[in-house]
Amino acid sequence: MKNLKKVLTENGISFCPEKEIKNRINKLTLYLQKENIPAAIIFSKVNNYYFTGTNQEQFLIIYADKAPLLLVKRDLERASLESPIETKEIKSLKNLKEFISEKRIGLEFNYISANQFIKLQSIFNSDFIDITKIISEIRSIKSNYEVGQMRKAGEIANRVYTESLNFLKEGLTEIEFGSIMFSLALKYGHEGILRTSSVDFSPVSWHILSGISGNIHGQYDAPASGIGLSTSFPNSASRKKIKKHEPIMVDFGICYSGYQVDSTRMYCIGEPSEKFYFYYEKAKEIEKVVLDNLKEKVDSSYLFSLAVEKAKELKVVKEFLGVGKNKKRFIGHGVGLETSELPIIAKNFRGAVASGNTIAVEPKFVVEDLGIIGIENTIYFFKNNWEKLTKISEDILTV
Amino acid sequence: MKNLKKVLTENGISFCPEKEIKNRINKLTLYLQKENIPAAIIFSKVNNYYFTGTNQEQFLIIYADKAPLLLVKRDLERASLESPIETKEIKSLKNLKEFISEKRIGLEFNYISANQFIKLQSIFNSDFIDITKIISEIRSIKSNYEVGQMRKAGEIANRVYTESLNFLKEGLTEIEFGSIMFSLALKYGHEGILRTSSVDFSPVSWHILSGISGNIHGQYDAPASGIGLSTSFPNSASRKKIKKHEPIMVDFGICYSGYQVDSTRMYCIGEPSEKFYFYYEKAKEIEKVVLDNLKEKVDSSYLFSLAVEKAKELKVVKEFLGVGKNKKRFIGHGVGLETSELPIIAKNFRGAVASGNTIAVEPKFVVEDLGIIGIENTIYFFKNNWEKLTKISEDILTV
Repeated sequence: MKNLKKVLTENGISFCPEKEIKNRINKLTLYLQKENIPAAIIFSKVNNYYFTGTNQEQFLIIYADKAPLLLVKRDLERASLESPIETKEIKSLKNLKEFISEKRIGLEFNYISANQFIKLQSIFNSDFIDITKIISEIRSIKSNYEVGQMRKAGEIANRVYTESLNFLKEGLTEIEFGSIMFSLALKYGHEGILRTSSVDFSPVSWHILSGISGNIHGQYDAPASGIGLSTSFPNSASRKKIKKHEPIMVDFGICYSGYQVDSTRMYCIGEPSEKFYFYYEKAKEIEKVVLDNLKEKVDSSYLFSLAVEKAKELKVVKEFLGVGKNKKRFIGHGVGLETSELPIIAKNFRGAVASGNTIAVEPKFVVEDLGIIGIENTIYFFKNNWEKLTKISEDILTV
Repeated sequence: MKNLKKVLTENGISFCPEKEIKNRINKLTLYLQKENIPAAIIFSKVNNYYFTGTNQEQFLIIYADKAPLLLVKRDLERASLESPIETKEIKSLKNLKEFISEKRIGLEFNYISANQFIKLQSIFNSDFIDITKIISEIRSIKSNYEVGQMRKAGEIANRVYTESLNFLKEGLTEIEFGSIMFSLALKYGHEGILRTSSVDFSPVSWHILSGISGNIHGQYDAPASGIGLSTSFPNSASRKKIKKHEPIMVDFGICYSGYQVDSTRMYCIGEPSEKFYFYYEKAKEIEKVVLDNLKEKVDSSYLFSLAVEKAKELKVVKEFLGVGKNKKRFIGHGVGLETSELPIIAKNFRGAVASGNTIAVEPKFVVEDLGIIGIENTIYFFKNNWEKLTKISEDILTV
């Protein structure tokens, strides 16, 4: 198409700097060399975007000893315009054989389907090595450019939370309030979708639980799942009417230029009860303990144990992260191109915090006859300092 | 939780009739018996919902010769309440071995990841047989109950299209108009997410392409992908301002109770040009040819060829389904729990139309210097009759 670049840029599409792409590819190349893997094929949308800067229907080959090659099914012109990597057209999966004949090939076992895997086995006479984890590790260290995108996502979140207060009123259902917030979010630059590494899990921006919804357990690996809209989508906002004084937890993901931030704030119509205030203050105290102890190489499980210790000291450990067998064992997760990335701040997670991580920290309480109460911010951790990327008022947002 | 059923039903959650579930399971059981597969494990969300009526974190075992068993990671109580199938708690994937020891096991190869597949190979000493396709075939024949859910989705679509006219005005961007439509949709019962069988493709409800956006090719297997919001989400609505007189194509999926309908209508601010009218009328004529020829057992590829023949007769074949190498080879797709199901009405699709199919038929034109113009309705085909489930005005929606 003539003037494709002009049409895209005039309508708000910007391109990833070439230097970013080169640095990212370089990190994987070093790993491939070290592990004696001559080449890797990248299938997932998320990692294609990360390593190429474009997200067309494509496969990326990263070689250990030569320049990468981007094979595009459609649209070749747009991919060539958006990515600094050399592109070639490809008709289908089986044509991959023309570009790669190595005996050891890296693949993302977490992202490709069993069907694709079996097809690749029939195309190649090669050993396949899972590179899902190393790519997750590389992605967990963010560049300045990436943090810049996340900062913009945080600014969108701030606008959405602030302006949504003009619309909250008694009698709205959770999903009606969610639809208003989501509409504001799309308007201000949210891309609507929250990518995730799970093959079969769709997080939504409208995770809004009011009152008793915060006491409903479900499929989510979170202190509460909520009622949801049907047995088909049994979590997040529901058709429950929001009542005066009850805790309204809004856990709202925003995505800008592919990069997400995650944040939670509490809303209330009328005055929050003393108990509501009490638990919210405790959540902030626990958040502070975690942030105060963010240091390079500190163990993720140690950070988690500090949070639990603090909850014990504050005499709120029973309600912390859920009750009884529904109690969860994490208080934070990396965030970036996907909702849940490395590192996970959890009881059983083996790993440490590293400079460049972006982490959503989310201490929450499930309180009987009250609901779910907590706070969440996305933090950028860099050289033993941290910055909140979600600079939103931390008062209970009251109307 | 005490009163869980009361809380769910009071807030709009309804349950799938037991008879539905039994009929569905029965169809797969017959297949397993015929193919000598003693048991199948269902992993995907979509098929778990289809065969159990609940969608918690769960695995379903369907045996050839005994009653099915639903193994629930969380939440057992909610799954037991929502599904008529016997439930048991399960801690993790490896505990599956306690419930299944057959030498031949059916799995959904299209839905599980390579990683899960390899894990299952290490847990079981069994042959795995892909049952993705047979389940798709079973699901392609809808029951009255299912069509009832889709009819409700169609009613939501009608409300959204009709009311959105109150908000369309010059200067809105595509995504701003999309955010308004999506907000209305959530309010009236749309569940927000459009499930799809693809591991790595996320359709969105805001597929709105105005003017030149309809000439932008991309990753979608559709006549046009649009500009999108970024290089990370390079399709559907963009930040392009909608102009007077240009074709505004709104291809808007709605999901109710897990069931989707797909539909497309054209909008215009001010009077549409003669050329815009012309192509829109031709799209309706081609739709009519396809619907007039819907018969039991008619070949899908034959229906497609009729549409192309009609486009030739109308002298619009050059623009039909895209131009040049970007021309597409399908004019319809099954729709139901997923955006794209069986049957596909396409040039190279081997298969036929069957009573009980629900099909989205979408003849579209890509016209140089104008954009994309077309119509789409979701049809219920039953005993050689058809009904439009998307009963929305078929005029160009003009403000």
